[in-house]
Amino acid sequence: MSHLSGSIAKKIEPFETIAIVGIGLIGGSVALAAKTRRLAKTVIGVGRDARRLEVARLRGIIDEASVDLAAAGSRAQLLVFCTPVDRIPAGIREAAASCQPGTLITDVGSVKGCLYRDLDEGLPGAVEFIGAHPLAGSEKQGFEYADERLFENRICVVTPLERNSAAAVARIEGFWAGLGLTIVEMSPAAHDRALAETSHLPHLVASALAGTLSPENQALAASGFRDTTRIAAGDPDLWSAIFLGNRDQVLATLLRYECLLERFRRALEQNDADVLKELLKTAKIGRDAMAHG
Amino acid sequence: MSHLSGSIAKKIEPFETIAIVGIGLIGGSVALAAKTRRLAKTVIGVGRDARRLEVARLRGIIDEASVDLAAAGSRAQLLVFCTPVDRIPAGIREAAASCQPGTLITDVGSVKGCLYRDLDEGLPGAVEFIGAHPLAGSEKQGFEYADERLFENRICVVTPLERNSAAAVARIEGFWAGLGLTIVEMSPAAHDRALAETSHLPHLVASALAGTLSPENQALAASGFRDTTRIAAGDPDLWSAIFLGNRDQVLATLLRYECLLERFRRALEQNDADVLKELLKTAKIGRDAMAHG
Repeated sequence: MSHLSGSIAKKIEPFETIAIVGIGLIGGSVALAAKTRRLAKTVIGVGRDARRLEVARLRGIIDEASVDLAAAGSRAQLLVFCTPVDRIPAGIREAAASCQPGTLITDVGSVKGCLYRDLDEGLPGAVEFIGAHPLAGSEKQGFEYADERLFENRICVVTPLERNSAAAVARIEGFWAGLGLTIVEMSPAAHDRALAETSHLPHLVASALAGTLSPENQALAASGFRDTTRIAAGDPDLWSAIFLGNRDQVLATLLRYECLLERFRRALEQNDADVLKELLKTAKIGRDAMAHG
Repeated sequence: MSHLSGSIAKKIEPFETIAIVGIGLIGGSVALAAKTRRLAKTVIGVGRDARRLEVARLRGIIDEASVDLAAAGSRAQLLVFCTPVDRIPAGIREAAASCQPGTLITDVGSVKGCLYRDLDEGLPGAVEFIGAHPLAGSEKQGFEYADERLFENRICVVTPLERNSAAAVARIEGFWAGLGLTIVEMSPAAHDRALAETSHLPHLVASALAGTLSPENQALAASGFRDTTRIAAGDPDLWSAIFLGNRDQVLATLLRYECLLERFRRALEQNDADVLKELLKTAKIGRDAMAHG
């Protein structure tokens, strides 16, 4: 990661109109936070389900609802893609074709490498895409759980490329910082390596653990089990797309995890209390080194 | 599990004197809860570190402090062992030799089979041991974190044997129910099989996951990683003893987990979104079926 900067000016020039594509937990939270923090005069929520979007509008999460991505894109100065990762590249290409010159595009996707590869033919010269990933979320789904404070004091990884203009990078980082996030710049590949470790492997491990529990023992699962498996309640379609989008890194990280698990197994099989304690101590030191929470 | 009974009379006859052996997070919480709920007139805290015990006494967690297990045991009608599992059998044997006829002994250990095997030669006829395991705790250590409400609305597994008298079982279950726990009777072996799944494997998995995190990525670990690894902050000595005490069951459960992990790996390697979604969905259904929390 190239730098950690929490000091980006919070007083950014508001956008006239932003379009948020995909109004779920994250998209809804981006919309609410952008409105509360006056980062945009008008927030258009874009989606496929007109009735759901209308509910979001009536609840004050978005100002306008639209099922027409091209039309919304042509009016916005900033588009924020909050759809599942496997639908982001096609959405960006579709929107970009209608965008005004100078339009900025960003996203919240959990995987970056495959997105950039997919967009590699380039977008119309008029628009600039700079990927982002606010490290905030929940296993819950839907704008009903949207929270204008979801991003406060969290990190946002931003993945600009050499070809991006300094002005566009500053404007997009300013937007995310304006939501309360601390900006960390990384390359798409470095982001994907890190997230495989901090997010994708944990999800896989939690899911396998939840899947190992016998139904008859559910009543005996206490807070430890609940904490350890909480993220396994996430949306299977969403997470399947994330795993496959970051397949090589997830497999590489899984291999390292399996090797460590194997050392635990061997210590247990050999009744080796010393090795077992050493493995547990290393894990504890790693966990204790993280900030509380 | 043979029955679930939350309706055991809460109005139990208080004990004159109980001795709690091991005044840490759990022992301290048992002491506080027993005093608050008037289950004992006098609570003796027994340990090895006289200064720590004196602090606990000054804080009102225990009424008396003692480093003399035999002396404390000879005065108590109920002894509750809250030491690490590998120190419980020797402690029980040492105390039992000095106990008055009719004294009851229980514990809070996370493993039951090895404890019963260890005590199998039998205790002096005058005393009865009935194991218990309140499913409540924390990764924190020390009576500083003791909480008189730790046991409220949690489950307590009690593992009476055929040879135990009905009166002793009722008295000990009444004590645990009096702390706010719902009693579940199980055999020691059934307890150990269930806990391998609901507690011991999750700890092993969380520790291996915490151990896989590279130091340079710690700053990017968000709430998902934190939840999934929280229990890895537990005491390595304590957990090493639990793993080795329940070694066969932990290894058997670990094998089932590894097989499921292998299915995830294969689906990823083969880019099989359908299998991946199916595995994630099964995990999610299992997790969602648990009560909230």
